[in-house]
Order: sequence, then C-alpha cells, then structure tokens
Amino acid sequence: VIKGFPEVIFSQGKTTDQVINIMLNLLKINKRVIATRASFELYEKLKEYIPDAIYFDKARIIAVLREDIKKKGKVVVACAGTADLPVAEEAAITAEIMGSNVERIYDVGVAGLHRLIDQLDKFYSSNVVIVVAGMEGALPSVVGGLIAKPIIAVPTSVGYGANFNGLSALLSMLNSCVPGIAVVNIDNGFSAGYLANMINLMVEENRK
Amino acid sequence: VIKGFPEVIFSQGKTTDQVINIMLNLLKINKRVIATRASFELYEKLKEYIPDAIYFDKARIIAVLREDIKKKGKVVVACAGTADLPVAEEAAITAEIMGSNVERIYDVGVAGLHRLIDQLDKFYSSNVVIVVAGMEGALPSVVGGLIAKPIIAVPTSVGYGANFNGLSALLSMLNSCVPGIAVVNIDNGFSAGYLANMINLMVEENRK
Amino acid sequence: VIKGFPEVIFSQGKTTDQVINIMLNLLKINKRVIATRASFELYEKLKEYIPDAIYFDKARIIAVLREDIKKKGKVVVACAGTADLPVAEEAAITAEIMGSNVERIYDVGVAGLHRLIDQLDKFYSSNVVIVVAGMEGALPSVVGGLIAKPIIAVPTSVGYGANFNGLSALLSMLNSCVPGIAVVNIDNGFSAGYLANMINLMVEENRK
Amino acid sequence: VIKGFPEVIFSQGKTTDQVINIMLNLLKINKRVIATRASFELYEKLKEYIPDAIYFDKARIIAVLREDIKKKGKVVVACAGTADLPVAEEAAITAEIMGSNVERIYDVGVAGLHRLIDQLDKFYSSNVVIVVAGMEGALPSVVGGLIAKPIIAVPTSVGYGANFNGLSALLSMLNSCVPGIAVVNIDNGFSAGYLANMINLMVEENRK
Amino acid sequence: VIKGFPEVIFSQGKTTDQVINIMLNLLKINKRVIATRASFELYEKLKEYIPDAIYFDKARIIAVLREDIKKKGKVVVACAGTADLPVAEEAAITAEIMGSNVERIYDVGVAGLHRLIDQLDKFYSSNVVIVVAGMEGALPSVVGGLIAKPIIAVPTSVGYGANFNGLSALLSMLNSCVPGIAVVNIDNGFSAGYLANMINLMVEENRK
Amino acid sequence: VIKGFPEVIFSQGKTTDQVINIMLNLLKINKRVIATRASFELYEKLKEYIPDAIYFDKARIIAVLREDIKKKGKVVVACAGTADLPVAEEAAITAEIMGSNVERIYDVGVAGLHRLIDQLDKFYSSNVVIVVAGMEGALPSVVGGLIAKPIIAVPTSVGYGANFNGLSALLSMLNSCVPGIAVVNIDNGFSAGYLANMINLMVEENRK
Amino acid sequence: VIKGFPEVIFSQGKTTDQVINIMLNLLKINKRVIATRASFELYEKLKEYIPDAIYFDKARIIAVLREDIKKKGKVVVACAGTADLPVAEEAAITAEIMGSNVERIYDVGVAGLHRLIDQLDKFYSSNVVIVVAGMEGALPSVVGGLIAKPIIAVPTSVGYGANFNGLSALLSMLNSCVPGIAVVNIDNGFSAGYLANMINLMVEENRK
Amino acid sequence: VIKGFPEVIFSQGKTTDQVINIMLNLLKINKRVIATRASFELYEKLKEYIPDAIYFDKARIIAVLREDIKKKGKVVVACAGTADLPVAEEAAITAEIMGSNVERIYDVGVAGLHRLIDQLDKFYSSNVVIVVAGMEGALPSVVGGLIAKPIIAVPTSVGYGANFNGLSALLSMLNSCVPGIAVVNIDNGFSAGYLANMINLMVEENRK
Ligand SMILES: Nc1ncnc2c1ncn2[C@@H]1O[C@H](COP(=O)(O)O)[C@@H](O)[C@H]1O
Ligand SMILES: Nc1ncnc2c1ncn2[C@@H]1O[C@H](COP(=O)(O)O)[C@@H](O)[C@H]1O
Ligand SMILES: Nc1ncnc2c1ncn2[C@@H]1O[C@H](COP(=O)(O)O)[C@@H](O)[C@H]1O
Ligand SMILES: Nc1ncnc2c1ncn2[C@@H]1O[C@H](COP(=O)(O)O)[C@@H](O)[C@H]1O
Ligand SMILES: [Mg+2]
Ligand SMILES: [Mg+2]
Ligand SMILES: [Mg+2]
Ligand SMILES: [Mg+2]
Ligand SMILES: [Mg+2]
Ligand SMILES: [Mg+2]
Ligand SMILES: [Mg+2]
Ligand SMILES: [Mg+2]
Repeated sequence: VIKGFPEVIFSQGKTTDQVINIMLNLLKINKRVIATRASFELYEKLKEYIPDAIYFDKARIIAVLREDIKKKGKVVVACAGTADLPVAEEAAITAEIMGSNVERIYDVGVAGLHRLIDQLDKFYSSNVVIVVAGMEGALPSVVGGLIAKPIIAVPTSVGYGANFNGLSALLSMLNSCVPGIAVVNIDNGFSAGYLANMINLMVEENRK
Repeated sequence: VIKGFPEVIFSQGKTTDQVINIMLNLLKINKRVIATRASFELYEKLKEYIPDAIYFDKARIIAVLREDIKKKGKVVVACAGTADLPVAEEAAITAEIMGSNVERIYDVGVAGLHRLIDQLDKFYSSNVVIVVAGMEGALPSVVGGLIAKPIIAVPTSVGYGANFNGLSALLSMLNSCVPGIAVVNIDNGFSAGYLANMINLMVEENRK
Repeated sequence: VIKGFPEVIFSQGKTTDQVINIMLNLLKINKRVIATRASFELYEKLKEYIPDAIYFDKARIIAVLREDIKKKGKVVVACAGTADLPVAEEAAITAEIMGSNVERIYDVGVAGLHRLIDQLDKFYSSNVVIVVAGMEGALPSVVGGLIAKPIIAVPTSVGYGANFNGLSALLSMLNSCVPGIAVVNIDNGFSAGYLANMINLMVEENRK
Repeated sequence: VIKGFPEVIFSQGKTTDQVINIMLNLLKINKRVIATRASFELYEKLKEYIPDAIYFDKARIIAVLREDIKKKGKVVVACAGTADLPVAEEAAITAEIMGSNVERIYDVGVAGLHRLIDQLDKFYSSNVVIVVAGMEGALPSVVGGLIAKPIIAVPTSVGYGANFNGLSALLSMLNSCVPGIAVVNIDNGFSAGYLANMINLMVEENRK
Repeated sequence: VIKGFPEVIFSQGKTTDQVINIMLNLLKINKRVIATRASFELYEKLKEYIPDAIYFDKARIIAVLREDIKKKGKVVVACAGTADLPVAEEAAITAEIMGSNVERIYDVGVAGLHRLIDQLDKFYSSNVVIVVAGMEGALPSVVGGLIAKPIIAVPTSVGYGANFNGLSALLSMLNSCVPGIAVVNIDNGFSAGYLANMINLMVEENRK
Repeated sequence: VIKGFPEVIFSQGKTTDQVINIMLNLLKINKRVIATRASFELYEKLKEYIPDAIYFDKARIIAVLREDIKKKGKVVVACAGTADLPVAEEAAITAEIMGSNVERIYDVGVAGLHRLIDQLDKFYSSNVVIVVAGMEGALPSVVGGLIAKPIIAVPTSVGYGANFNGLSALLSMLNSCVPGIAVVNIDNGFSAGYLANMINLMVEENRK
Repeated sequence: VIKGFPEVIFSQGKTTDQVINIMLNLLKINKRVIATRASFELYEKLKEYIPDAIYFDKARIIAVLREDIKKKGKVVVACAGTADLPVAEEAAITAEIMGSNVERIYDVGVAGLHRLIDQLDKFYSSNVVIVVAGMEGALPSVVGGLIAKPIIAVPTSVGYGANFNGLSALLSMLNSCVPGIAVVNIDNGFSAGYLANMINLMVEENRK
Repeated sequence: VIKGFPEVIFSQGKTTDQVINIMLNLLKINKRVIATRASFELYEKLKEYIPDAIYFDKARIIAVLREDIKKKGKVVVACAGTADLPVAEEAAITAEIMGSNVERIYDVGVAGLHRLIDQLDKFYSSNVVIVVAGMEGALPSVVGGLIAKPIIAVPTSVGYGANFNGLSALLSMLNSCVPGIAVVNIDNGFSAGYLANMINLMVEENRK
C-alpha cells in the first residue's frame, strides 16, 4: 500500500476475530484503516474494541479515520440503479477515504439514455469516471462514447440466466468498441476506487 | 418453409455441384429460390446453368426471382459499420426477397450516439427492427431503450481478444436490461431477416 | 416502458421495503403495476399497504390492476410440464396483463409428440407462440417445424448434470435448424411475454 | 479389438506411409482391416500396395475384405441430411463391415417431422438405432419419444455461431428428457457403428 | 415409457404433494411405479397414503411393486467406491425393477487394478456393463480395454477442484480411446439402468 | 475520438481499398491519422496514394503525421520479451503519436526478477505504466507490488496449451491481489496506449 | 498407498459413521492413519471411539499416529497469507506425517516481494518446494524464477469475481514461463504434500 | 536456467533469423544449447551457421552439444502410441541432454493393459516417471495405481470432438484419484523432461 494511503483489510473469508486483531495491529501505526466486505454484525463486534469505528452500510465498509482527509479533484461514480449500488458505493467510499471528492450519478441506465445525457456536465468536471454495470454491461461504452475521460469499468455479478455471475458484463466491457476503458475484476469496487483516486490525486497534485 | 415463401439453400458446407442441383430441383416448382452463404465463385459456376440468377455480393446471397415481389410495411436493419455489414445485408436482402420494405441504418454505433438519435424517426415508422452488433453488442440495448418496437438482435463474430467468436455480443444481448429484445444465433442474418419479415407481413396483412 | 403499458418491478435482489416503496410511488401515476419474481411472503407484506394487490402464485407475480384490460388477439404459451411451469406462467400472466389473450398448452413434450400434434389448430389461430423448454430444449424446433408463426423460445434452467443451469437448452434454441425462432435469456418468461404481447398488439391494432 | 472383429486404423494424424505399413502388417494375420478418416489421396497411394482395397468415399473409409461378411439383424442409421452424412456413413459402413444389416434413413429432420413419422415401421424392425444430428441435436429425443429401442446418439460438429463445434448438439443429447439414449463423442460415427453392431450381434446370436 | 415397463416419476423439483398425487394416479392403471431422486422424508409422507411402498435408501428410489418381476439375463454395475454409490445404486435398482438380474462390482477403482482383474469373469457372463465413475472418469476405459461388452458409462459429479461438477469425468468418457462406450448425463444412473435393461432384455428375449 | 487526438483506423477485417479510402477522407480534415493492425503489404499499397505515410513495423501501425507532436510526461511500457513485443509496440507507438514520451522496458520477465528490480527508477519517473504479458500474466502483479503508479495491464494471446488464446493471462490480471491495476482486452495494445496517454496528458497539463 | 506410508481417508462426502468405521478398520493393520477434509465436529465424534486421535485444525486433518515418525530432509511450503492457509497446512501436515521435515514460509506474496527475497536461503536448503496461491496464482512463477528446486504448485479456490473457483490460479500455474513447475488440482494440498514427501524421501534415502 | 544446465530456446513464434542469432550468442558462453519446437527447415538453415548442430526429428529439437553428458539415474517416459510420440520425445530428449538416462515405454495404452503390466519392472528401477497421454488421459492414473514413483503427467492435444485441444486429458490428470501425480501444461514435453531430470539428478547426486 502506498505511503499516505490508508491500510485496507479484505474481510471476506476472515473470521471476526481475525479482522479485529488485524485492525487493532494496523491502528498502532496507521491513522486511517478500512475493512471492506464487512457485514453489520462484524461492525457491531468490532465496535466494542474500537469505539470510533464507523460503518458505511451500503458500501459494506468499516472505517477508522483518526486524521482529517482533505479531498481533492473529482471522481464520478456512475451506475444504473439499485442492484449495482453496493459495488458503486464500495468504489465511492474507497475513493473518498483515500482523498478524492466523489460525485455519485446513480440514476442512469442504458434503458433511459436521456437521464445520462442530462447530466453530462457533471462528468466534464471530473478527472476520472468509474462506471459500474451488470447484466449486459453496456453503460461504460455509452459513457465512453459521450465523455473523453479515463473510464474504469466495474462489471457486477448482478443478473441471472446467461449472465454467468458477471461474465457477460465483464466480456462486454473488455470488448468495448470505445477506447480508453479499462476493466477491473467483477464486483471489485474497491480496486476501481483505489485506482481512480490514484489518478485523480496525480492530476490534482500537479494543479496549481 | 411457409407457403408463399421462397425456398432457401444454406450453401456453407455444400459443394458447388450440390448447391446447383438442389437449386435446379427447387426451381421446378418454385418461383423464388435463394442460396445464402454463397461465394462469388459459386455464383459464377451456378450462372452457367441458371442464367437469370443474380448475386448480392455484400449479403453473399444468390437469388433466382421469377415472380414480382410486392413489398409491404417496413423492417429497419441497423448496425454500426463496415465489419457487421455482411450479416446486416444477409438480413436485409432476406427480408426484401421475402416481401418486406427494408430501411438500412448502417452508420450508427454506441461510440457516436448522436448519429443514432438523429435518425429515430426512421425507426418509428417501422414494424420490426433488426439490430446487428459485434464486439460488446451494446447497440440493441441502446436502440431498445429509445424505440418501442420488437427488436431482433443479431450478434456477430466480429472482434478479437476476449470476444470468443461472438460469444461476448451474444451474452450482452441475452442479458439486456431492456425487455422486448430477442436474439438469434451468432452471424445468423438470414434467420433474423426471415423472422422480421414474418412479423412485418402479419402486421401489414391486417392493415386496411 | 411503452406508453399504455404497465410499469414493472423486478423484485429479485430487492428488499421487501424497496419493492413496496417503488410500487407505492409507481401507483401514484400508473393504473397497472406488476412485480415479477415475487415470493408469497413479499405479497403478504405488500398487501398490508396495497390491499387491492393480487398474487399469481405459479407466475410469482404481484399485480395491481386499477383499470380494465381489453385483451386482444392470441398468444400461445407452450411447455412440457411441471418443472417449466413457473417460467411459462410468468410469460403468460405478463402477456395477459399487458393486453393479450393467452392460450396455455402445457401438456406437450418432445417425448410424447402426439399430444402436440393433436393441438396444432390451437397454434394456427394465434399471432405469436412462446415455447418454454428446459433440458435439451428441443421443443421450439419441433413446434417451429410444424407451425409457421413467430416463435419466442425461452430456455429454462430446469435439469441437472451437463445442463449447466440452462446453457444446454439455450444453445439448442440458438442453433435451431428451423428459421423464425428468436431466443430470450434463460428463465426470462417476463421478456418473452412482453415481446409476444407487443407483436400480438401490433397485428391486432391493424386488424379491422 | 474383439475376436472375429476387423482390425481398425485411425488414419487422422498419421502419414500415408504409416497407414500403409500398419495396414500391410495387420493384413498378415487379419482378413478384414479398415482405415477410417481416410482421404481419397491416401486410398490412391495405398491401392498401389494393396490392390484389393476398396474405398467408401462418403464414409471416408478404406476397407480390405478378404472374407465374406454374413450380415445379421438390423441397425438403423438416421440423420437429417447432407451435412451430417459423412458421420452417418462412417457409422453405417462400420456396422456393415462388422456384420450388421444397416438401413439408412437420411431424409428425416426435426423441421419436417412427417417424413420421420412416415418411416416409423423401418425403426420397429431394427435392434438398435443410431441417430446422427448437428446444430440443436434434437433428433435423438424426437426419435426416442417415438421408438422404444436402444438409441446411440452421435452429435456432429455441423453448424456455426454458438454451435461451438458440436458442443450444442452434444449437450442436447446428454440432457435428453427421453431415457434410453446414450451418446458418443462428437463426429464419432465409428464408435457408434461399433457399439450398435455389438448390441445387434448379441441380440441376433441368441435368436433361433 | 415402453409397454410392460414401470412408470417413473422424477421427484427432484416436485413437491411432496405433487409426487404423491402423480403416484396415486399412476397406480390406478399400473402395477409397478417408481419415484427416483426421492428423499426418505418424501417416502415417509407417501407411505401414509401408499402403505405398500418400499424405499431403496442408497438408490433414493421409492417403488410400488404390485406384480412379480421375473428377472432375466445379467447387467453388471461397476464403480470405485463410496462416493459413486448412490448413482450406481440408482442404475442397479432401476435395472432390477425393470426386469434384469444385476451384479454389483463396487470395490474396483483405477488406483487398485488387481481388484478389477480378479473379477473379470463376473463381467464375461453379463450382457451389458454399466460403469459409474467420478473424478478422472478413467474406469470405463479400463473396463472397456478388458471386456468386449457394450459399456454404458455414467460420469458422476463426485470430486472437487477442477472437476467442475462431473465435467472432467464426462469428457474423459466421451474421449475414451476404447470403442464401444456410450455415455449418459452426469449422475444419471436412472437412464443408464433403463438402457442397460432394455439391451439385456432384447438379448434374453431371443435366447432359447 | 477526442479533439486534438489523431484519427484511428482499425485495419483488421478491412480490405486494402477500404483502408486507403478511409485514410484519404480522414486526411482532408485531420493532420494526424494512424491505421493499426496494418500489414507491410497494406502499407506499400497505401504509400502509392499517400507518399508521406510511415510504417512502424513492430507495432504494425501506419501513420501520417502532418504536424509536430510535442511529447509530454512519461509512460512506461514494460514486457518480458520477443513474443509480447508487437503488442507492447502497438501501445508505445500509439502513446507517442498521441503526445506522450514513452520509455520501453522490454527486458523484464517474472523468470528473471533482478532485471526488473535494477530498473525500478525508470518506473518512478513515469505517470502511468503499461504492462504487457502473456502466458501466466504475472508481470503486472509483480510490477504493481513494487511501484505505486496506475497500471494498465494488457494480456497477450502468446502461449500455447491451456493458455486459451490469452484467457489465462487475462484472468490472472483481473484477479491480481495488487490494487490499482486495470485491464484491457487481449492483445489490445492500442487501447492501453490510448488510455495511458490520456492519463499522462491530464497529469502534465496541470503541471506548472 | 505405498508400503510404509500411512493410510488416508478422504472425509468429504462421507458420513461421520462411515469415516469412523473405515478408520477403525484401517487401524487394525496400520500404525498411522489420517483423515483429510475433516471438520472439528467429526473429530469430536471420532474421538469417542479412538481416544488417541489428534486434530490439526488449520489443516482439517485427523491423525492417529501409533508409531514414531523420523522426519528427514526438508520440504518448504510457501504461501501468501490467511486465506490460502488451510490448503498450505493440509500440504504441510501431510508431508510431516509421511516423514518429511517441513518449513513453512507463509508471509510471502507477490504484492510484497522483499519478504520473499529475505528468506531465499530457507528455500536453498530444501529438496522440494510447495507453493500455494490463489487469485492470480503468480507466486509459483516468481519463486521458480528465484530458486532452482522442483516446485509443486497448488492453486486455491480463494478469490472472487472472474476467479472461477480457482481456475484463474490453475491456468496461471500451468502456463508459467518458468520450467520445473508441476501443478496439482485446485485446493489439493494433500496430493502436493504426498508428492513432495515422496521426492524428499527419495533424495534423502540416498544421502549418506 | 540452473547452473550446469543447457540453455534453451523456444523456437515457436520466432523467425529463423531470431533463433539463429540467439543460438550463436548463447554458444559464446555455453557448451550445450538446445532449441525446442524446431522444424526441419529451421534446422537446415541453422546448420549453415552452426555445422555441429544435430536434429532430433521426432522431438523437434535442435541441439548443439560441445561437452560430454554423463547421464545418471533413470527417467521413464511412457505413452500409448504414435500420436503422443512428439511430446514424449520432447520430454525424453530434454531429460537426456540435461543428464538423465531415459527409458522409453511407448507401447502401452489403457486399451491394452497387459502390455503395461508386462513392463512394470522397467518402472521400478526409475526415479521419476513421465506419462504422456491424450484423449481421455487415463494412463497416468493407471500407472500411478501400479507404481509408487513421482509421476509427471503431460496431457496432449491429440484427439478430436469434445477433446477441446487437450482440455479433456488435462482435467482427467488433475482429477486423478491417485495421489503423487503432478501435471504440466498441454503438450509441454519440455517442462516435464526438465522437471523429471531435476528430480532424478537430485536423487542421484546423493547416491554413493
Ligand atoms: N473489496 C475488495 N475487493 C478486492 N480486493 C480488496 C478489497 N478490499 C481489500 N482488497 C485487497 O486486499 C488487500 C488486503 O488483503 P488482506 O491482507 O487479506 O486483508 C488490500 O491491500 C487490497 O489489495
Ligand atoms: N473414425 C474413428 N473415430 C474414432 N476412433 C476411431 C476411429 N477409427 C478408429 N478408431 C479407434 O482408433 C483405434 C486405432 O487407433 P490407431 O491404433 O491409432 O490406428 C481403433 O481401435 C479404434 O478404437
Ligand atoms: N433419476 C432420474 N434421472 C433422470 N431422468 C429421470 C430420472 N427418473 C426419471 N427420469 C425421467 O423423468 C421422466 C419422468 O419425469 P416426470 O414426468 O417429471 O416425473 C421419466 O420418464 C424418465 O424419463
Ligand atoms: N518446448 C517447450 N515447451 C514449453 N516451454 C519451453 C519449451 N522450450 C523452451 N521453453 C521455455 O522457454 C524458455 C525460453 O524462451 P525464449 O527466451 O522465448 O526462447 C525456456 O527457458 C523454457 O522455459
Ligand atoms: Mg447495465
Ligand atoms: Mg457493437
Ligand atoms: Mg425440453
Ligand atoms: Mg439436428
Ligand atoms: Mg474414477
Ligand atoms: Mg508473462
Ligand atoms: Mg496469489
Ligand atoms: Mg490416453
């Protein structure tokens, strides 16, 4: 993990005890520590030991933030709706805690293009765009056709039938006919938020 | 094959002799016969035996048309560009020979949405829309979000990398978040044209 | 969603509260709203807030219908039996609520062809045929060989072994040697019913 | 290889010299030797050394038959048409050379059921039925629903698009809702003919 | 289902009520009815209505047998051990109820070849051999190399890792270098028993 | 394509005539046009019409550059060796023509880590890193563990056996345990170069 | 199982009773018996019958060791961390019980190379190295590039998204550009430990 | 590459010039250099520059050997026959040039077990066994059940139908029910020979 960046625990597949112990250890030398893929139950247990821990329920992230975050620049996180929301929020909260201003545009989907087109100016003022999409995964291509910004596409496992747990959306995004789109693993909002923040901060650090 | 419909030969995997013989036999009792997936070489050989055969080179279709076709209604065939053109033309020529007026809208792709939006009225006046798309296969979802018509989506094997010979586009189309889209096999322009024409004629036959 | 068409909520992956809230909002400006993939438990909760909601248990659909539906034309929904029934009913109820007369032919399977052949006249009087099939997914090809109507094929995830959650049936339907068959996503009875109804109404609206 | 059975060479992936040498060696102690997957070019070369070799061109089989074959019982080989023919013939010739009477029923396909139904009596008088089918692979299920005989299904790689070189037909056949169908590898007409003959001879050897 | 054969209910995916009702109906005109994939709980409920029902627990089959079965010939069912046993028993009980003598050879696996070789004579006196195998699915090839009988191979979903729910064993069996092996669907002991019995009875019916 | 960016033609799947015509048209209003996936034969033909076209043979890119490019910042392109070179060069030349300084680090592979470690300072002075890798695709994870820069990973189809045309490398990169890595399609050096340049220019444009 | 080697029971898919019975039987003639994939619940039941059984909880192995094990040579087991630990421990305990000294190096991952490089001397003094890795499965390639020892790579199913239950790591390891790496099945720590021990003992038995 | 080991060039995907240049460079400081996957044409060209190069045609390996090789110990290479031979020879020649005695056992296949059993003593006197197999890939399991030696399994792409270029054999080998078998990539005889030699030399170096 980069210097100045918070430490991160991936909770999935770890016991409650393991997460709490790792968190306590990391807090000895870090001012910001987060645990991703954390359930509310985990949070409640952990809070007994670390009372200043806070919980972002949509993002399923526990955070302990013992220093101020000065947010810079702007990252847009776009998705179509309810079902992609946990992944979008994981990306958004990650980027915020790591130091980026985030604008959420969650009411846009391929089936109702005008809502996307109405908000294009919000995209223009950002440095990076994260697009989260499940099912046919068409949203990043559509956004990429309208906006000349680096796009990080996050396929989600949302869907059913021949969706194959996100494979359909993943392939769509990799095969986009629009250049300038890069893809992270299925449901990996964390990695998208991490990368978007890194790019955003690089741009802003040079701004005078 | 339905009464009143032309007979169809699928040339792929047949020898030149086989196609010519089948064609000659079918012409004994049919006024319209077509051969799909036909090369120009096949056409030149066949023409020696059937001089009134004509060739649609982009569609790779040989047709013998010994009666007038009164075209009715309208089918739109849309695709993004050069590479999907053979499949789009196979669909378009099939629908035309079977009795439909066809409007081609070939200059539209997800990467340049305005060109699609500029031509929406052409879609409104049709009975069925065929959308041909390779790579990420997003076009049918976008068209389906804008136009309330039955949509037949044709994935093409155009692309490379993790495209897997059209699988990426096929999965996108099956997983579309827009209802009212049905899908035919990869590159199967013929089946799309056949089905679109059938729906178009049903609608028109009832029109007074 | 098309004007005049009911609004639709996809319940799967949404909490009870989310579905109820969306339903209440939609009912402010819509006379027909349905929720698909809805459990009986969801229905019982929702009924406390919306007492005129009704439940189609085989189709797993909740409907609130505050205007009369004048059904037109005819859509046939065919399947082999018990296991494909939920998907077939989802298609049938969807088409009915959207405005189509539906004839169910549920006692036909590839293993007992005569039952299908005995009822061919029911198919002849329809405008569109929906064929639902799992396992080897052969039924749409067989129906398509006997009846010259637009066929919407719905693969189901019914089966086991090398069925791969409906992939076997999906591939069969896409590869049908019979033209005029288009396919929707695995288990997607809703989309099939939606499309069939759209085609059926187009045909009927022109009938005088 | 079973006693009394001919020796078999699988030519694919062997050089002309290798096949000729193996054939010459086997003929020292065998009266019937066949080479499958053999091109006409291979046959012409081989004939210079083994002048009594004969060639079954549709089946792509070279045979040297230095004893009389007394054919018994009956195996039916059924398929839909032109494209599946080489595989069907490989099965038929194999079964004939090994000692079975074979009845070919090659004009039957799912898209034209009546042709199948018209010939049911031919199936009734057989001991085993081989059904060869590509594309959606529905034919074995349909035959199995009509005829109570052991069925050996052979998927072929015939098709295109989402056919995946015969995978679609293979999965269909494995997932058949009709019991009593067993499947051999894609395009493996030889193995089907071999097994059908074995069953046929077992039945006949007991007949008095 | 063939005349003289018992009726069969596939219980998986059916409610207890559905199975009992179908069973009661079938018993009105049938003397032998079986239900496969039946849990012990289902059996206990069903027994209240049909007291002469019996349960084969390893095979998970409920049977009502109101006539004597005169078993003929011999079918061998071979497998490696504990984990493949339910599938092997489904095959064995099916064949027995349908009219075959069955010899079980369950102590043989590829990792201990001598146990197989020690029992070869048991195979020689049979008409058909069913080989059930999971994991690498090598047993049918090994048996097929030693015994010249029709072999029906049943892949099981037993295993883990890159087993992919039986796909590994299925592919092994389809690709066997030994001819005369045909394959049924993963875990489909019923279909194997059904087919083996059909072949066995055909052979025996001709024996004098 | 973004304003100020060169126009790009994807030559693969287009005829020589098509590429030349498109190029001639684009040059009417653009000062920089490039054609990717271009063979030397295509270049020679095209040069007859456009004599100032130049050819980058390793990158398989034709370029017409009628204005000066002022390169800014730095993009690193890293790969292991000979076989990944065409893809790496496609990325590098794309980024250069679009306005980035590019440093190539082509002598690094997972099998010889010290060569990578010896050149770490070259990475530190860059804004973005492109890592091209085939076979097991491990290089981006290793680079990402050593350098805190945005990484664009490009899987290549180089390899054989269970490589599945680049799928192995693609999956490795998507599943990297190192955050901050985003992936483009297999062999898509162009898209990687395009995105890297976009990020690089954004950073530099803000630098004072 | 080799003479002198302990007997092994694979508990997964067996009932508690079955495991206990097999264990009791094996103990009649064996001094060392182990059961892999054993839960703590199973251990507690089994202990009532076999009080000297011990449980390795991380490895999920029950062992009854009624003779001294003289450990020889050295096997290294390396992995990245918490999540791969159960598989690594299954390998380590297996090798130890079978007669090898094992050194665990569990704090090394591709994302923090220096920890691996700091411990290279531990690898130099071993005869075989087992490398356990999930996600992108890069660790065996990196270790193999640094150390000239036989490497047994164990992919784990740890990960999510496009990990496909360990397929990603499996393919990476098979496609390693470093020679001298062989791979066992996903999560198969037992087989890796068994093979490593066999090689280690062969080397040591010859040492004087 | 390990000290004392020959240098290796992987010719596939390299031009003749590239291979010759690399070879000439490596020979400046190495006494043994080999090029794998080399055609006879490549050898003839290379010989003009390096007259002491020799060619192993079955193994497709060019070798320049300017020092004596003292072969030690024994590696067995086993396969079924003609088609797997190139891969088996690549393994055998690699191990020989690297310093191992190799015994080839090429006349053994699962379909004729006795030929394998007749030669068991040849396996007993070896340190490592390489088993090469295509199609169903059963041979390593059978060998592993008979012989307690480390086994390196090499799946080959030999086969057709549902073989999927060696995937069938690869999965069989990974899922072997016999422990002590490790697998290399499809067709990778080189890697198997390299690893077998490494193990063999380790064992022998300790022998006194
Ligand atoms: N939600 C997430 N999705 C994917 N990777 C994550 C996530 N959260 C954390 N990680 C990665 O997991 C690492 C921590 O893993 P661990 O040491 O197992 O807690 C972090 O450095 C991240 O690279
Ligand atoms: N057309 C075929 N398809 C599949 N397997 C075949 C075919 N012809 C022969 N075989 C098998 O290949 C064996 C001979 O292989 P070989 O020794 O390589 O010639 C025969 O015993 C058959 O089992
Ligand atoms: N265990 C089984 N595995 C596969 N198919 C079965 C099994 N048991 C019954 N069947 C098939 O399912 C049919 C009955 O299905 P159903 O009408 O749904 O009860 C029977 O005729 C058999 O073809
Ligand atoms: N036949 C082969 N199969 C697989 N890998 C090979 C083969 N021959 C050589 N290699 C590997 O390729 C490396 C050399 O690759 P290169 O530098 O591209 O010539 C060697 O060190 C081996 O690891
Ligand atoms: Mg979406
Ligand atoms: Mg497209
Ligand atoms: Mg069906
Ligand atoms: Mg067919
Ligand atoms: Mg087995
Ligand atoms: Mg690499
Ligand atoms: Mg790892
Ligand atoms: Mg083999």
